[in-house]
Amino acid sequence: MAEAAFTPKDPQYEQRVRASFERQAAMQTIGAFLSVIDPGRVVIELPYAQALTQQHGFLHAGMIATALDSACGYAAFTLMPHDAAVLTIEYKINLLAPGKGQLFRMEGVVTKPGRTITVVEGRAFAIDEGREKLIATMTATEMSVFGRDDVKH
Amino acid sequence: MAEAAFTPKDPQYEQRVRASFERQAAMQTIGAFLSVIDPGRVVIELPYAQALTQQHGFLHAGMIATALDSACGYAAFTLMPHDAAVLTIEYKINLLAPGKGQLFRMEGVVTKPGRTITVVEGRAFAIDEGREKLIATMTATEMSVFGRDDVKH
Amino acid sequence: MAEAAFTPKDPQYEQRVRASFERQAAMQTIGAFLSVIDPGRVVIELPYAQALTQQHGFLHAGMIATALDSACGYAAFTLMPHDAAVLTIEYKINLLAPGKGQLFRMEGVVTKPGRTITVVEGRAFAIDEGREKLIATMTATEMSVFGRDDVKH
Amino acid sequence: MAEAAFTPKDPQYEQRVRASFERQAAMQTIGAFLSVIDPGRVVIELPYAQALTQQHGFLHAGMIATALDSACGYAAFTLMPHDAAVLTIEYKINLLAPGKGQLFRMEGVVTKPGRTITVVEGRAFAIDEGREKLIATMTATEMSVFGRDDVKH
Repeated sequence: MAEAAFTPKDPQYEQRVRASFERQAAMQTIGAFLSVIDPGRVVIELPYAQALTQQHGFLHAGMIATALDSACGYAAFTLMPHDAAVLTIEYKINLLAPGKGQLFRMEGVVTKPGRTITVVEGRAFAIDEGREKLIATMTATEMSVFGRDDVKH
Repeated sequence: MAEAAFTPKDPQYEQRVRASFERQAAMQTIGAFLSVIDPGRVVIELPYAQALTQQHGFLHAGMIATALDSACGYAAFTLMPHDAAVLTIEYKINLLAPGKGQLFRMEGVVTKPGRTITVVEGRAFAIDEGREKLIATMTATEMSVFGRDDVKH
Repeated sequence: MAEAAFTPKDPQYEQRVRASFERQAAMQTIGAFLSVIDPGRVVIELPYAQALTQQHGFLHAGMIATALDSACGYAAFTLMPHDAAVLTIEYKINLLAPGKGQLFRMEGVVTKPGRTITVVEGRAFAIDEGREKLIATMTATEMSVFGRDDVKH
Repeated sequence: MAEAAFTPKDPQYEQRVRASFERQAAMQTIGAFLSVIDPGRVVIELPYAQALTQQHGFLHAGMIATALDSACGYAAFTLMPHDAAVLTIEYKINLLAPGKGQLFRMEGVVTKPGRTITVVEGRAFAIDEGREKLIATMTATEMSVFGRDDVKH
């Protein structure tokens, strides 16, 4: 995917993403980390771990989706104003190949930002012995939320 | 959702589901367990755990999706012949409410089984202080796969 | 699907749906008509026409989707306040069987209404020589829009 | 989107697409025509017509989806062997902007071809007074079908 070219509303977008990510215990549990935070584009990486596998020893599709969904949500979040929280309304994922590899790279790129709704496209890649392979694509619909107690930044 | 009324092709469907589920390390890592295995319908339950939370302390959407996707995949698997493996081609999830509760119940029910393609609908419920609430819906497309080494039962 | 049980915010919901539907030239072009308008549930019917077929002489999937999408959008619209317009953000459709029949019935039922976002499930049935068959399922995400000139009621 | 770089299994792919398209009465009814047929990439164009509008006078989302779904299906079809038929299993569409313009261009590009399953991404553009705008994105899952009477080429 081409690099996104967006102007963030909040120059502190990177700190906001990092602060939110660090509060997600689930990301630490699965071992995911933030790799790139650009306006409209976030990359999350996830090393292979036996604890995250499905029945054939590959990375579980749920773990791919979890990290890819986060990359998409945070990509949208980079373009939101400082007082917005991000809420994933829905996503769709196509699983193209098994999660076979040592490292996985999940990339979310904003297709169209909006005041209320932001649409994001995600791609997950497996890096297997140095070769990168597209293993999943996602389309996610994210909402900017303001002033809701159960959905903070 | 109404109870599914399907005749399984393989009377050993329950054992097949249990054996496959037990090989999924990710399910054990997140603490999910099989609760109901009927022909065309599988329920997976997942207790709340702080290690699985998002930034507001609720169950991470990725964990909801992971367990719900498994319920859908295994619901399809119950209706497949004994030599088939199940592969999730794609799914779409709508997140309706935060994952607030002590226990989560994920239910997959087959909408239409097929020789190659089986479509399944999933619903995730949060049980919060005894009250049950619908928190997510899913539609998943599952494929029956035969004779592929990387996709065994 | 079970009948929806919702209380409309605007008692004139039926008139609003009818008035909007009548302004959709596309619905007249394909011959679709409103059959049921209940709070949270709308049924649209579409008779078979050779002009709407795909390469095998069955109803084109696009026509099924068009009418089913409208049923979902209007189902959401029945629950919105009188000054809201409805906008379809996205939908997903699974095509389960060919559009073979003399009449098609598209049913949209609200899963969860919301101030901004309403999620709707749709089902399309073909009536072929008196027998009804499920041919498609849809999940649609609808948005309530206020005060936008390009999106009126 | 980048141009797809695929080698077709059947050198007659263009004729097969044209022959199938011409048998789709619905495409003629709405006025859609084939504009580009490359291996793994098909573009369909659709001029604005009042008969295809929604309640605000813009192109109906159903017509956008119908033509975009066809572009995706035929993009997959270009890469299938000569004896295969193409069946759309499911698609998801995000509607990003109203269908405001004089001409609409729908582009389907194969993400990943497969023996049974081919995943395609679609983009719809409105051309409004010479300016082009992205108005919808689609992900479609297509299946290669062999030897079924109700699903010919």
